[in-house]
This record gives sequence, C-alpha cells and structure tokens, in this order.
Amino acid sequence: MSDYPKFAVIGGGSWATAIVKMLSENLPKIAWYMRNDTALEEIKVNFHNPNYLSSVEFDVDQLYLTNDINKAISYADYVIFAIPSAFLSKEMEKLYVSLEGKVIISAIKGIIPETSLIVGEHFHTVYGIPYDNIAVITGPCHAEEVALERLSYLTLACRNEEHAKTVADCLSSHYIKVKETDDIVGTEYAAVLKNIYAIACGMAHGLGYGDNFQALLMSNAIREMKKFIKKVHRMKRNINNSAYLGDLLVTGYSLFSRNRMFGNMIGKGYTVKSAQMEMSMIAEGYYAAKSAYELNQKYGAKTPIINAVYDILYNGKDPKKTFRKLTEKLD
Amino acid sequence: MSDYPKFAVIGGGSWATAIVKMLSENLPKIAWYMRNDTALEEIKVNFHNPNYLSSVEFDVDQLYLTNDINKAISYADYVIFAIPSAFLSKEMEKLYVSLEGKVIISAIKGIIPETSLIVGEHFHTVYGIPYDNIAVITGPCHAEEVALERLSYLTLACRNEEHAKTVADCLSSHYIKVKETDDIVGTEYAAVLKNIYAIACGMAHGLGYGDNFQALLMSNAIREMKKFIKKVHRMKRNINNSAYLGDLLVTGYSLFSRNRMFGNMIGKGYTVKSAQMEMSMIAEGYYAAKSAYELNQKYGAKTPIINAVYDILYNGKDPKKTFRKLTEKLD
Repeated sequence: MSDYPKFAVIGGGSWATAIVKMLSENLPKIAWYMRNDTALEEIKVNFHNPNYLSSVEFDVDQLYLTNDINKAISYADYVIFAIPSAFLSKEMEKLYVSLEGKVIISAIKGIIPETSLIVGEHFHTVYGIPYDNIAVITGPCHAEEVALERLSYLTLACRNEEHAKTVADCLSSHYIKVKETDDIVGTEYAAVLKNIYAIACGMAHGLGYGDNFQALLMSNAIREMKKFIKKVHRMKRNINNSAYLGDLLVTGYSLFSRNRMFGNMIGKGYTVKSAQMEMSMIAEGYYAAKSAYELNQKYGAKTPIINAVYDILYNGKDPKKTFRKLTEKLD
Repeated sequence: MSDYPKFAVIGGGSWATAIVKMLSENLPKIAWYMRNDTALEEIKVNFHNPNYLSSVEFDVDQLYLTNDINKAISYADYVIFAIPSAFLSKEMEKLYVSLEGKVIISAIKGIIPETSLIVGEHFHTVYGIPYDNIAVITGPCHAEEVALERLSYLTLACRNEEHAKTVADCLSSHYIKVKETDDIVGTEYAAVLKNIYAIACGMAHGLGYGDNFQALLMSNAIREMKKFIKKVHRMKRNINNSAYLGDLLVTGYSLFSRNRMFGNMIGKGYTVKSAQMEMSMIAEGYYAAKSAYELNQKYGAKTPIINAVYDILYNGKDPKKTFRKLTEKLD
C-alpha cells in the first residue's frame, strides 16, 4: 500500500469535506489542509468536521490534518483545491513549496476575481502549470448527498488520460461514478455559469414566478450557456451531458444552493449587501456574474439572463422590472 | 364582437379548466363540454369547477356549458381536446356532427391506446383531418399555476400559420405567452415521452435516489428523447427549446405530477395495480411507456430509461435491480 497516489485536499468547506470522504473510500492516507484550527482539532478529537457535513465520520488515521498549506502540498502529487475562488490568491501567497510536477485539480467552480480567469486557466497562466497537469472536477453533485452516500456522478476533465484515470479511480466508489472528458475549459465555464443561472432562478422565485417559469428559464439558460461556451472555446460537446445540463439542474433546482438562496433574497427585496451579510456565505455566482458579463463584452454571445442578473447585482436595477423585461426575451 | 373565433374545449379536468380560463381572458363565449353533470351544474351555480382548479371563478355568461359533445363541437370552429388519451375514442363514438373544416387542437399529451398513435396522427389517420387543421398545445405549463395567473409559456405547434396565430392570440394574456412552431410531431412526442421520464424520476425518488441522481437522470432523459424523436421524425429542432426540455423539467421536477407520483409509489414497492387504485387518476406515462417501447422496436433508438420503466411496469421486473442496472448505462 506504499505505492498509492498521494492526494491533498485544500479547504475546510462542505465540498472539500465531501471530497475527502470520497478519497477516504480508496486511500490509506489523505492530506487535508484547512485554515480553521478549531475545526481541525475537532476532527482529530470527534472525527467529524463540526461546520460542514458533520454527519460524516472520518477515520483520523487516514488523515494527515494540517493548518499549513505547504505541508499538505509537499506531501501530495495530486492537489485538489476546494475553496471559494475569492480566497485562492490569498492562500497561494502562503505557498513556498513548488507545484512543479504536481497535478492540480480544481473543484472550485468559480472565476478568480484578480485575473477574471477560470481556475484551470489561472493556474496555467499565473503559476505556469502545464494544461496536462490540470484537471477539473464538476457535478452534478451536492456535497450533502455525498455525505448520505447517495449515488452521484462526477465529471473529471483532464487532457492527460493517465492523470484522469488515477484521479477518477481514487474518487470512485459504490456511491460515486466518475465520467472523464477532455473539455476542461467548457466544463469549468459550465460550472461557473450555472451559479449565475441559479441566482436567476432564486430571483424568479423571490419575485413570485412559479415552476412553469422556472422550467422555461432553465431551458433558456442551457441554450444561453451553450452559446457562451461555444464563443469561449469551440469544440464538439453535447451541452446536455451531465457536466453541463446536469450540473445546471442540480444547482438551479436545489433549495439548498447558496446561489439560488442569494438570488431569492434579492428577488424578495434585500439589497445585495444585506443579502450577503444575512447569508454569511460566499455565493460564487455573485462574482461570476460580473466576470462573465465583462468577458462577454469581448465575445458578444446573446446572454439576456446573465445580463439581467448583472444589471440587478451591479447596476442597482430593479429586479421586478428587469425580470419583466427578461420575460419578453425568453421563449 | 360577433366575429370572434369560436372555440370549444372538450374535457372537465384540470388542464381543460385551465384552458377555458385562458380563453376566457379573450373571448366573449366558449363552449365547454364535460361528461360530469354534477360538475356542470356546480359551475353554473357556484361559478367554479368543483373538482379541479376550484379557485378559478368563471363568468358563466361567457360559457356555453354542455354535456353533449355534439353541441359543443357544432358551435365551434376550433376544438381543443383536453381529456386523457384513453378516453378519446369513447368520446368520439358519441360524435355525429362533422369535424370537416374545423381546426382540431390536441392538449392531450398521450398516445391513443387503440391505434398507438400520437393524437395529431390519430386525428389525421382515423378521422381524416388534414394536417393543416391540426394543432398541438404543449407546455411547460402546470394547470395549477395557470389558476394562480403565474407567468407561463405555451408552445403551439401547427403547420398552418393563420390557424396558429388565431389559436395563439386567443390563449395569450398577461400571464400566458405562446410560442409557435411547425414541429407538430416532435412537440407531441416530447409531451408524451416526458411523462415516461417523470415516472422514472418518481421511481428513482421512491427508491431513495437523491437530487444528484435526478439531475443526471434528466440530462440523460433529454438526450434519449432527442434520439427517439429524431428517429420518428427527422427535422431541424433544438431539443433544449421550452416545448421539449422545459416541458420535461416542469413535469420531472414537479411533486404534483401524477406521473411522478405514480412512479414514486412503484419505487416504494406498490404494485402497478395498487398504485393505480390508490391514485384514482390516469398517469398518461403508464400507457405511453408501452406505446413508446413498442414503437421503438421499429426505430431502434437507444432508450435505456424508457426500457427500464417498461420492464418494471409491464414485465414485473424489480424496480431496485432494474434501476441499479440502469445507473450503469447512464453518464
């Protein structure tokens, strides 16, 4: 067993916790870094993360728990980042060990605010990681259902087949199936855009639109997503595959999605600031709306839903009027 | 106002009631036929259908209520059928007035058991209605939300543009938008197949699968639907338009869908017979599964979800085992 792949998971949130659980089905040791010392100590003593998926019990002998990101990364050949995109740069500043030769796996689903890049591109551009050593994990997958060991499918995007196979094997179990794809750009954009659409769904709900409109909105969202991604990176892809449509659906229809929840509060009349304070959580889609909107100034895809969300969040437009106008553009 | 289009609605269920409500926003008179005398009398006296969407109040002066299908059809130039597919032939047997020159609009969303045809084809083949005089109304649209006047989009499929415009105009209102298409075969098959997929969603839920799997199942369902419809009637269509994907989503994700409810009971271990007795409602998808499965013996589209539903409903296969096998075929 000394020859097993060495993984580190960076992050202490629910998705990081779910990923550690998945890996712990297959590996005798996993490095797990988080900033929160109290949570770390709690895991050591009580065997579960006190803040997220607390029903999941870990075997601490399997975990190399550390609050030093350098130690976690030194240990590993495969590093999975599962922290909000807004925190990545700050965490990376702490790094003095080299990432060379390591496979960097993004489970972030966001755009890095400092560079307006998706995570894979960011690692490639800023840290010089070759694309062959970059992978992306996407859903459709709620962390909460991983905790319950309910059958879930992941998509792993990686250009290098060998790396893809290793990562897929280590994540797979009786409740996790992993599909591989080489569309790392498209799957990552889909994972980013879906959060904006989930905000739109939440806004619609908050404004009093019903299930009929939600279905219509989703059917427009997937067409809009297809156009957007096609402009960014043209390749043959079926937008109805689970990494795109499935991920959109699980987020847009979930009452637990923080993006949908955030949109719902805006729809109900909260200001952006008060919704954010109330939630005390990062809604990735908030940043994504700005980045995607600005990026699309270059690409010019027709994106009425993203535009509406952007206008409401960043231009102080009235949600009710903006959505009324949006309904005229959908079909 | 003497020159308004003359519509008759055939049926007393929730969808028929919703359609009468839509038309009543625009027309001074609508003929409404239903078998149920008690319900008819109740509408006359208390202004609402006692059995379905009872919150909707009608102006009875606008309604030509009758329990004689011949009278309703004699009155009308546009006849909207909104009864379960299993009852159509029986109702048509009562007919002695001619359908010649009338526009026949199906709001049925089912396959006629006696001929295994979708409703448009059935009217064309059995009653000689020219395709130019046939139209199909599909969602995404729950009747319940029409009652609440929540913004909903319909799709009207008709080859004759003039008829399409008239019907669309008469259905449109501040809460109903109507999109027109010429794909009468594809939209009607989509409306039929979605009920089978809703049964599959219900079965999955009843068996304990979660939201992650539901999203995966939906993303596979729309791809399967696309393949199936392409075999039946090849034309350029975007399967992610609201008439196809939107309608699938509103049915598959609705907890009120009788098809999903029926599937849920089967997943929980009810026999087909006891689930049907318990529900005392027709789940269109039950018949559709058989027809679609048999039809596909000719077309040979790859339809693992339809096959699984068929096997469980008609071959007595164990839902748990059948779904476990199905999960291996999805991605």
